[in-house]
Amino acid sequence: MARNITNPEKDFARWYQDVIREAELADSAPVRGCMIIRPYGYAIWERIKEDLDRRFKETGHSNAYFPLFIPQSFINKEAEHVEGFAPELAVVTHGGGKELDEPLVVRPTSETIINHMFSKWINSYRDLPMLLNQWANVVRWEMRPRAFLRTTEFLWQEGHTAHATEEEARTEALRMLKVYTKFAEEVAAIPVIPGRKTEREKFAGAVDSYTIEAMMGNGWALQSGTSHYLGTNFAKAFNTVYLDGNNRQQYVHQTSWGVSTRLVGGVIMVHGDENGLRLPPKLAPVQVVIVPIPGGNGEESRIMEISRRIRDELLSMNVRTELDLREGVSPGFKFNHWEIRGVPVRMEIGPRDLENGVVTLSPRNRPGREGKSTIPIDSVAEKIPEILQRIQREMLREAREKMESRTYEVKDFGEFKASIAEKPGFYDAWWDGGPEEEARLQEETKATVRCIPLEQSGETGKCIMTGRKTNTKVILARAY
Amino acid sequence: MARNITNPEKDFARWYQDVIREAELADSAPVRGCMIIRPYGYAIWERIKEDLDRRFKETGHSNAYFPLFIPQSFINKEAEHVEGFAPELAVVTHGGGKELDEPLVVRPTSETIINHMFSKWINSYRDLPMLLNQWANVVRWEMRPRAFLRTTEFLWQEGHTAHATEEEARTEALRMLKVYTKFAEEVAAIPVIPGRKTEREKFAGAVDSYTIEAMMGNGWALQSGTSHYLGTNFAKAFNTVYLDGNNRQQYVHQTSWGVSTRLVGGVIMVHGDENGLRLPPKLAPVQVVIVPIPGGNGEESRIMEISRRIRDELLSMNVRTELDLREGVSPGFKFNHWEIRGVPVRMEIGPRDLENGVVTLSPRNRPGREGKSTIPIDSVAEKIPEILQRIQREMLREAREKMESRTYEVKDFGEFKASIAEKPGFYDAWWDGGPEEEARLQEETKATVRCIPLEQSGETGKCIMTGRKTNTKVILARAY
Repeated sequence: MARNITNPEKDFARWYQDVIREAELADSAPVRGCMIIRPYGYAIWERIKEDLDRRFKETGHSNAYFPLFIPQSFINKEAEHVEGFAPELAVVTHGGGKELDEPLVVRPTSETIINHMFSKWINSYRDLPMLLNQWANVVRWEMRPRAFLRTTEFLWQEGHTAHATEEEARTEALRMLKVYTKFAEEVAAIPVIPGRKTEREKFAGAVDSYTIEAMMGNGWALQSGTSHYLGTNFAKAFNTVYLDGNNRQQYVHQTSWGVSTRLVGGVIMVHGDENGLRLPPKLAPVQVVIVPIPGGNGEESRIMEISRRIRDELLSMNVRTELDLREGVSPGFKFNHWEIRGVPVRMEIGPRDLENGVVTLSPRNRPGREGKSTIPIDSVAEKIPEILQRIQREMLREAREKMESRTYEVKDFGEFKASIAEKPGFYDAWWDGGPEEEARLQEETKATVRCIPLEQSGETGKCIMTGRKTNTKVILARAY
Repeated sequence: MARNITNPEKDFARWYQDVIREAELADSAPVRGCMIIRPYGYAIWERIKEDLDRRFKETGHSNAYFPLFIPQSFINKEAEHVEGFAPELAVVTHGGGKELDEPLVVRPTSETIINHMFSKWINSYRDLPMLLNQWANVVRWEMRPRAFLRTTEFLWQEGHTAHATEEEARTEALRMLKVYTKFAEEVAAIPVIPGRKTEREKFAGAVDSYTIEAMMGNGWALQSGTSHYLGTNFAKAFNTVYLDGNNRQQYVHQTSWGVSTRLVGGVIMVHGDENGLRLPPKLAPVQVVIVPIPGGNGEESRIMEISRRIRDELLSMNVRTELDLREGVSPGFKFNHWEIRGVPVRMEIGPRDLENGVVTLSPRNRPGREGKSTIPIDSVAEKIPEILQRIQREMLREAREKMESRTYEVKDFGEFKASIAEKPGFYDAWWDGGPEEEARLQEETKATVRCIPLEQSGETGKCIMTGRKTNTKVILARAY
């Protein structure tokens, strides 16, 4: 076991902090609740951004940038919105050496200011749909901060769209949930359950909120991305209207959707193990690290030459490769260094490898001797992309199996209460409760309704809280 | 002349605003001094980011992210820094519904918070150099806002590096100035004069500030990028020290450097003309627009088929191509639409072109009949990249010629005063003045010392203000 990393079975929260510190992903800031994203952590976020940005553009969205500061009065315009966000706001009261006439809110999200602009830009049905996204920082005052998961300032993208009809807007909200689902599974190797939020859990100002819920290594849920059908709530507050084909004024139907740096926390907690981080190849800043093992019998220059050649070859194929040439530290130190950082493939080249014309590969996801293999030096360029793809697939499969093995059916509230305390995980339950039952659920079990999965069996059963017959199943879990 | 665009010869400031509005680059925000960057304007910024980010990484820098909020006390630690920035700060006094114990400053730049972290991360000479960059928003309260050029919030990158020696840090500051110079000339097609700032004009907290100065269409200067050698000023304020090879504590030597969304303003003002924007191909969100001209004799489906084929072929070659299929608007309307937006190449395909097996090209930088040419349909894929490269070169050459034609030698202050009022431009002058002479210069001529060019002749002459003999020449100009 790596030094300085708590066993996750013993204390998952401390393990999480240890991994973040030892892998140099983030550091805490002098301002309470804020964080610094260090280069290695930021590089993971860059991969996330790059991939999602491409998906957003492929689905017809353009990036734009809206201001950080929002007049306080804007937030107050949509009743549920202000109620939801008021306790979390950071407020600028002074600017340029003077007290401001109207305080400015540091954006917690941008529905209000974007609607203010939409009401100016949208005139006729020809201006629709309007499909925008922005990559930005947002601020929500956080009393119990946790690196990546809950920070006062965080980075995210927020998509904002306006449509002529409810149907179009609902389709868009679900399309973007699908984009998030595919990203989570294909790129982050995180299986997720797409579903709808209950009334109690939905976004402040939405008609319907959708979510993808992922299971962390300790069985807790992480809401990993959300997509909202906003109806005409903001359109009415900001008078965002268009003239339809019959020259009649109509409110636009809207959506908003976002994922944030919290995803980095999800990657850590889904894939990490007792030796630190494990990164799926598609998100790894370094996919292959080459560690030359000095021999002492004069092979060193030949080992270096081959190491460099392989590095250059892999780089030319866009495999993110690092050659660890540090002097004064042992190979074991280097192995540990890259293991903690979760690099998918470690490649060693030592005197014996040289003799046999091979390199030795240690995939991060299959530790120990049985994971090791050797491949001929000449086939490295051919094999590595396949190996990275295989690791990507294996990590998704492993995460899915873990999630499934910790997903339980539960028929009765008493049973659930006892079970979740001992076996954190996803609990599949019939549900017909309202906000009151949800409050009781949380109070007595610390769990919440994570989502109403989009996929339902069509069967019926008895609600674990009310006992009423229902055709709705939900996922219950403790959550970050 | 395009509708709704003022002639730049008549009123350059209004022309600038007109171009921004008509090309849909930006819009003003409900908060004074802030702006919204609209999708087309943001797409230009994305090209700028992409290219610079690659250059930063090639020179060994990593991206990271530091918090938006800085404790007020941090800003106060470096004397010149606080003096320079205090009047421009936005201050958060309330968070999470409570008044804060210590007000938080919204970052105007990040030297202070980064030094706070550097002092934690840097221990020995082995941790050096530390080469970081961040892409972020910053806030400096602006009394006279102008879209892209001066806004209360703007987007930028800020590089921050720490080195063991003065020499290394000075080399870094100049290396990054060179990166900016190459970017400006090779990508933005903007010729610049790299030079050093005078004492009066340098960054608050720097030992030496370097700049690239570009000439706008009205003869004014725009400071387009800066790079600072900070010495040990911030290291001393934050105790950023390292143990050298002899186990002795030393202060690190630092640099910082940045460019911002102001560059988009520079691109508009260097290249734009009476018909709107003109974009260098490397920055253009759309490099080629295809406008099919319907014939009415049954060729339409064939014209559409060829247009689509060419679009797909160009897209597959990574030429950013748009096929304008809008119905209900005339070709003339479309020409105007893309002309205002500065698309480098317009490609028409009409019945006569079809008959001759050609397409007609109109490069944005050579308006009218003489710019037009036809090329065979089959050679489009071969010719377009060459044509885009040619336009890129021509735009740089044209901008350079314009700058040179408006660069004047001046020997005497009276002469300068009369001349700059009539002929705005760059004035090449011998200079031996100090802050006092600079203040007088600005008061009497509205011009400032833009920079002391890095390239000096080695000759000597008489300072236009003091009459003293000097070997230093400077550039004088009015500036944004």
